[in-house]
Amino acid sequence: MNYPTTIKNLIDCYKKLPGIGAKTAERLALASMEMDQDAIDLFSKSLVDIKTKIKHCTICNNLSETEKCLICTDNMRNKSIVCVVEDPKNIIAIEKIGTYNGTYHVLNGLISPLDGINPEDVNISTLLDRIDKENIKEVILALKPNIEGETTALYINRKLKDKNVVVTKIAHGIPLGADMEYIDTLTLSMALDDRKKIS
Amino acid sequence: MNYPTTIKNLIDCYKKLPGIGAKTAERLALASMEMDQDAIDLFSKSLVDIKTKIKHCTICNNLSETEKCLICTDNMRNKSIVCVVEDPKNIIAIEKIGTYNGTYHVLNGLISPLDGINPEDVNISTLLDRIDKENIKEVILALKPNIEGETTALYINRKLKDKNVVVTKIAHGIPLGADMEYIDTLTLSMALDDRKKIS
Repeated sequence: MNYPTTIKNLIDCYKKLPGIGAKTAERLALASMEMDQDAIDLFSKSLVDIKTKIKHCTICNNLSETEKCLICTDNMRNKSIVCVVEDPKNIIAIEKIGTYNGTYHVLNGLISPLDGINPEDVNISTLLDRIDKENIKEVILALKPNIEGETTALYINRKLKDKNVVVTKIAHGIPLGADMEYIDTLTLSMALDDRKKIS
Repeated sequence: MNYPTTIKNLIDCYKKLPGIGAKTAERLALASMEMDQDAIDLFSKSLVDIKTKIKHCTICNNLSETEKCLICTDNMRNKSIVCVVEDPKNIIAIEKIGTYNGTYHVLNGLISPLDGINPEDVNISTLLDRIDKENIKEVILALKPNIEGETTALYINRKLKDKNVVVTKIAHGIPLGADMEYIDTLTLSMALDDRKKIS
């Protein structure tokens, strides 16, 4: 005997999620059965809503329910600084610090010629448009410190050379609390290169 | 900035599932956004269906989409043996072996006077009814080897004493492949008590 079709369908749906294997999917499906009716209805509705209601902000490509996202429409934000990130998830991470008050620009990917992802496949042109139209003074590149991230940073930096804008990159180095002996050599060499004088 | 309400709702729904924390819920919600429309629709529908379509079998209490479950309606099954389990999940586990050909009876709980769960709160009376009405020759108790499981087994055994039925209990002992030194003393003592002669 297998599970009834309804349960099997739900298990299969859970299995499609990242990091959810057969056993966990089974556990989650059975747990869903124990949820009360309201919770299940909200869950079911939220899943549909996330596909229909969530759009990308027309300015910065961030996830948004409205045409322009909450950050782009916030008048308290410093519109002269733009932090360039790969993914909307990165915005959440930076927002959690609570100190950054500028705006963002989501590339939705990184340049990776080996995977066939060229500069025109990520949202760089819209970034250049913004710099031409808006009064942007600084572009902070907060991209992954890997080959794709470095390539993208290099490309954006070159494109912005002739424009009247400061381009910066977030610091890479040893994270706080990390044990020096477990840090990879590339990070260590970056940390050494970017050393700063103790005032 | 936080996530838009729609995403936040979905994260909260995922968080209600067992073993899913804030970080995982976030990851699952964002992954759900990347699923295609059909998958999301099926997911959403399955969640609602599981609450509306899944019933308990009127004979054995197993999960079922019909009034009687697939096992109880299977004529190839040996109806004279009933395996008593705590939970429908246990049925799946036993069915996976592929050799058991009898039927089941789901108690939906174990007797636990400390938690206020008395014999009348678990499906024991329906089991006794079945033994009176159906031609059952053997009752196999496949319950958890803890206090609640032992109490329940003892209670059922006492109730069945006067009925013309053999009551057996699945063997408890050292699982295959386990290291003897890591087995708890209770299991070891059970394994010693239940030793059998090598023929």
